[in-house]
Amino acid sequence: MDADTLIHARWIIPVEPAGKRLEHHALAITDGRILALLPSEEARQQIEATEVVELPGHALIPGLVNAHTHTPMTLFRGLADDLPLMEWLQRHIWPAEQQWVSRDFVAAGSRLAMAEMIRGGTTCFNDMYFFPDVTAQVAHQAGLRAAIGMILIDFPSAWASDSDDYLQRGLALHDQYRNDPLVKVIFAPHAPYSVGDEPLKKVRTLAAELELPVHMHVHETRDEVEQGVASHGLRPLARLDRLGLLAPDLVAVHMTQLEEAEIAKVAEASVQVVHCPQSNLKLASGFCPVAKLLEAGVNVALGTDGAASNNDLDMLAEMQSAALLAKGVSGDPAALPAFQALEMATLNGARALGLEDQTGSLLPGKQADLCAIDLGALETQPVYDPVSQIVYAAGREQVTHLWVKGIPLMRERQLLTLDQPRILADADQWRQRLEAGRQADPGGR
Amino acid sequence: MDADTLIHARWIIPVEPAGKRLEHHALAITDGRILALLPSEEARQQIEATEVVELPGHALIPGLVNAHTHTPMTLFRGLADDLPLMEWLQRHIWPAEQQWVSRDFVAAGSRLAMAEMIRGGTTCFNDMYFFPDVTAQVAHQAGLRAAIGMILIDFPSAWASDSDDYLQRGLALHDQYRNDPLVKVIFAPHAPYSVGDEPLKKVRTLAAELELPVHMHVHETRDEVEQGVASHGLRPLARLDRLGLLAPDLVAVHMTQLEEAEIAKVAEASVQVVHCPQSNLKLASGFCPVAKLLEAGVNVALGTDGAASNNDLDMLAEMQSAALLAKGVSGDPAALPAFQALEMATLNGARALGLEDQTGSLLPGKQADLCAIDLGALETQPVYDPVSQIVYAAGREQVTHLWVKGIPLMRERQLLTLDQPRILADADQWRQRLEAGRQADPGGR
Repeated sequence: MDADTLIHARWIIPVEPAGKRLEHHALAITDGRILALLPSEEARQQIEATEVVELPGHALIPGLVNAHTHTPMTLFRGLADDLPLMEWLQRHIWPAEQQWVSRDFVAAGSRLAMAEMIRGGTTCFNDMYFFPDVTAQVAHQAGLRAAIGMILIDFPSAWASDSDDYLQRGLALHDQYRNDPLVKVIFAPHAPYSVGDEPLKKVRTLAAELELPVHMHVHETRDEVEQGVASHGLRPLARLDRLGLLAPDLVAVHMTQLEEAEIAKVAEASVQVVHCPQSNLKLASGFCPVAKLLEAGVNVALGTDGAASNNDLDMLAEMQSAALLAKGVSGDPAALPAFQALEMATLNGARALGLEDQTGSLLPGKQADLCAIDLGALETQPVYDPVSQIVYAAGREQVTHLWVKGIPLMRERQLLTLDQPRILADADQWRQRLEAGRQADPGGR
Repeated sequence: MDADTLIHARWIIPVEPAGKRLEHHALAITDGRILALLPSEEARQQIEATEVVELPGHALIPGLVNAHTHTPMTLFRGLADDLPLMEWLQRHIWPAEQQWVSRDFVAAGSRLAMAEMIRGGTTCFNDMYFFPDVTAQVAHQAGLRAAIGMILIDFPSAWASDSDDYLQRGLALHDQYRNDPLVKVIFAPHAPYSVGDEPLKKVRTLAAELELPVHMHVHETRDEVEQGVASHGLRPLARLDRLGLLAPDLVAVHMTQLEEAEIAKVAEASVQVVHCPQSNLKLASGFCPVAKLLEAGVNVALGTDGAASNNDLDMLAEMQSAALLAKGVSGDPAALPAFQALEMATLNGARALGLEDQTGSLLPGKQADLCAIDLGALETQPVYDPVSQIVYAAGREQVTHLWVKGIPLMRERQLLTLDQPRILADADQWRQRLEAGRQADPGGR
């Protein structure tokens, strides 16, 4: 049997079938797809590969899926921390966005974010930001798999003037990437409180026609829910239900405020939930009832949120935070065990984005989106269970290799598709501009 | 002016004075002590140093103080996760300890832990485990500053047979290290539920005589408090108060179950509190009310706990977890800001252990216990505020240099006092033994 690439690893965690840990196995790739998983010894005899990769102390897992982020916001990383939410948004983030967000800003911020994500094991991300055309282009250059949001919000920005303009620009972008193997352009109305009924109805109709997910912040904070009740006489989820949006194509992010009946409703409607534990903690947004959602059968994925509210795009850390926080919040140390956290960060993310036939697990036939983690470091020794070490002890620095669609994006921690020195120089230039702007504006921090 | 070492850094965060960020400064060391902090330009003109270290993209901070750990338990890292507390303890940890804990086990486990701590920026740790004499010896070899606990518990172990034996062995160890510049042997009664009144009274008397801290798990879980009430008719804190132990020399670890009156009492008695956020989450022990304790004026330090319940000894991650969790639990995104988390992980830890005249901040005259963190990586760019980047975005892999008492223990991530290949080989050997033992015992997992 011939293969393009044959990867031998100490452990392979295919995620499907659930719970499986393979030892001393190999994964063969042909034409960007997973051809087979088999014991290394057999593979050495049976498979003739163009390239052979040896990972003697590593775990090979599906590439991580960051199911919610705002990539360009890496340029705001640490700009304003430890502030009340409204002060953070109104006095820092929104003014900074109004002043600085442009095609160049988005390009530099997206590149920084994608380099960070590749270095941290992420092969696929779901983005929502202005100038999604620029982020899509950078994703294409980086070679990452991406769901790029057609952002829609009821206020003008440098990207679009009104809701029709947002939609039109979004749909043009969707058209442009219609046949792209890696970039999928999906709907991304910002949040119930920032998008009115009419544009949401259009999204409902178009998403059904085009069979695309609808990526949206939902029930992020108690205030949001209270304001929703005050403005519409309904909790936001109930309003989305009335608009027909509670459906399997809704990717509802945050969901920290959920009553029992809402959990049942979300489960019944097969809504996708994205949990962002570090962002929810940092902004004191509340606790997503992850254990209850999973128990109710809801597909819960994992996201980092943007770097302004996290402050990194580290999915390994996010898995750990999710697994720890679910235990703390539910009072049950057996809640969200390590394997389930890994599943959230891979297969559940793929499912939420409608990509589960392509990525999220190492089933033969799927695209070869892979991440290798070296467990040989002191910090993850000894290894009794590789999954426990990945979720509870491994750091992003232990990610050594990354492939998307069988193409290597990182090898031995060297980025292969992005120009690291340029990314760092750009980030520092933007810092200088922002700091100069802040000094000129006494209203800033 | 002459110095042994002169370190130029992009940023220096001395922790004292509070909030200070110095840019392009240098720190001079003579005879193991901090001689001066001054602008790099001046230092280059005024100071003649034997060794000059250039840290052009780094933040230099006080070495981190891990105020609660069980170093040898690194060998149990990931042995048994995601289990109810009592099943975890009774079916996994205690049997494994009974079967395996020995001088050799403690030596190998301590070495692994200390290598990990050095790589993660920790210069001082507070330990509680069997065979503290072995851990003290390894700390001495590693060159780390350590508070080593005279463990005291009401059941026999391979280390001691009964409470008198524990105390006697502990005091002999204390005697041995009486004049050691780095190792301080302190009291360490395990917990109110595992140590009776009589031994605790002896500790009270001896700690006052010898002027030593008393390191103890207190109010870790709700069950512990309820059992305390059932056994003694008192909540454990009240019992400790009756025994005279609520005093500035008590280092009370965990403290997740605290009523308002107890917070006031703890503040009034100037008890030291050690918060272990990741361990408390993972074991679903409850939430330490850190924001309230700090507001009440309590000195709150930070610890990782042992690697069996964390599962790493990463104080940078622990700072981040503490800062995030305090916001989530208090509902206030301004709670526990980044600088305060750094203070907890440095100065407050030193204070808790009675070492604040020696370590925990970069005041001239203190011992040169230092940690350098390279903020030039993608993951911490751009830098608007180095403290925010350290707490919210930096990873342990960005720690490049470590000094204790002016002596380098790590340089450009190379360990200088410990033998990394040997540590890794030992860890793997212990894994093999434990796994063989587990297969032989069908009662194990």
